[in-house]
Amino acid sequence: MNSKELFQNILNKKSFLCVGLDPEISRLPESVTGADDPIFEFNRQIIDATHMYTAAYKPNFAFYESYGPKGMAALDKTVRYINKLDTNIFIIADAKRGDIGNTSKMYARAVFGEMPFDAVTVAPYMGEDSVTPFLSYPGKWAIILALTSNKGADDFQYHTDKGQRLFERVLSITQRWGTTDNIMYVVGATRAEMLADIRKIVPDHFLLVPGVGAQGGSLAEVAQYGMNRQCGLLVNSSRAIIYADSSEHFAETAGEKAREIQEEMATYLAERF
Amino acid sequence: MNSKELFQNILNKKSFLCVGLDPEISRLPESVTGADDPIFEFNRQIIDATHMYTAAYKPNFAFYESYGPKGMAALDKTVRYINKLDTNIFIIADAKRGDIGNTSKMYARAVFGEMPFDAVTVAPYMGEDSVTPFLSYPGKWAIILALTSNKGADDFQYHTDKGQRLFERVLSITQRWGTTDNIMYVVGATRAEMLADIRKIVPDHFLLVPGVGAQGGSLAEVAQYGMNRQCGLLVNSSRAIIYADSSEHFAETAGEKAREIQEEMATYLAERF
Repeated sequence: MNSKELFQNILNKKSFLCVGLDPEISRLPESVTGADDPIFEFNRQIIDATHMYTAAYKPNFAFYESYGPKGMAALDKTVRYINKLDTNIFIIADAKRGDIGNTSKMYARAVFGEMPFDAVTVAPYMGEDSVTPFLSYPGKWAIILALTSNKGADDFQYHTDKGQRLFERVLSITQRWGTTDNIMYVVGATRAEMLADIRKIVPDHFLLVPGVGAQGGSLAEVAQYGMNRQCGLLVNSSRAIIYADSSEHFAETAGEKAREIQEEMATYLAERF
Repeated sequence: MNSKELFQNILNKKSFLCVGLDPEISRLPESVTGADDPIFEFNRQIIDATHMYTAAYKPNFAFYESYGPKGMAALDKTVRYINKLDTNIFIIADAKRGDIGNTSKMYARAVFGEMPFDAVTVAPYMGEDSVTPFLSYPGKWAIILALTSNKGADDFQYHTDKGQRLFERVLSITQRWGTTDNIMYVVGATRAEMLADIRKIVPDHFLLVPGVGAQGGSLAEVAQYGMNRQCGLLVNSSRAIIYADSSEHFAETAGEKAREIQEEMATYLAERF
């Protein structure tokens, strides 16, 4: 999928919502814990109830790896389920990968060769040869960490060399490695005012914005500071949607929460396009 | 395992060698490709032939993930096999993990709860809450990327704020998060002369040093600049050992290569201890 197609899908759905699929066994409703594959069953019901309101899904690998081979099998089934339901939905492997060249090549094969993901999140610390192997699959994307939404972001991302903060250097340098059709950036919504600075460096790239909802970011501010002429935003919400309701009605409630966000997004899109 | 026990194991083995287990199907000798589980069979033979010369093994997750659930099952079998063979061998999950706190917690559970690893490599970009969840398992270690051995290391790791390079900031700040019994650092051997600078910041920590052999680093220089009063080094070699011979005698040759390195290491250890 290229950026034009992604933008078109966003306009069709009137949504730039990405739903994070981060299942924790201890938080799953009793109504699914008896299923053969509780993680997949939970995801399936969430997907069925939310896919009409979402442009993207983002399973975080940690939540699957922590349950061993069964967890990874549930991840595999989940990605294939989404892909079969609607091939226009953008599916992000939130895996924060990155290693020396010959190793990143193997990670790329894992997410793009073995599973039908459209994109993978990548940590930039190891530099160019750790990122470029993810860019060699046509239509696939690397989503590079720039400014994250967590407290620890302050430890290194603001390290400043000749007036240039580390996250700004990441944006400046990494954009040379690919195009606006295969590189996006992670920019946390808890720092929405930073989006204006970031847009000066990467005016045309898509941004994946986590941290709306549970982590406290404002959707209105993200849209105000972050939107570009192709929308240029995927805003993620995980816990605020998938754990909105712990009863057997969890999927219905997740659908309502997703619809609420989608309706707000539709107004921001209507103002611009 | 704490640092004192690791040091004792190094003295017992007269070796601070870590063997990287990075199996690529296309490079496996014909004599194992017919096995039920070729990856495990390859690893098992390598381990049988090298374990008397090694202090540690380091499977890189990418090489297993890229073969899907079968690959991950081979990884699981490999780790358990090493652990059963010799519980004193230090086993490193080379996974370069790191995410927001609640997610790193799940990654920690994957490597320490689900599998019997002693340590996991961690990318520092996301800061404190992305690293500390790996430090809450008694006897387990986080091995934090500081200065890596690849070309891309130049892109960000030398970003300099008030005279402090990013990798130096990583060393300075992260050591406050744990102890010399649960934090190590990755320092590439291709920059052995940097080890002297690094030892000024982290005199007492263990360092995991990749890049000897295939990537060109010198073991003599690493020992000269990097060794501390508890040895403080694990030097990794992957391809130079496991792919030294592509015939059916691959394991025997791997054992010889490991023994050669071990014998050189023994001389450096004898000079100091």
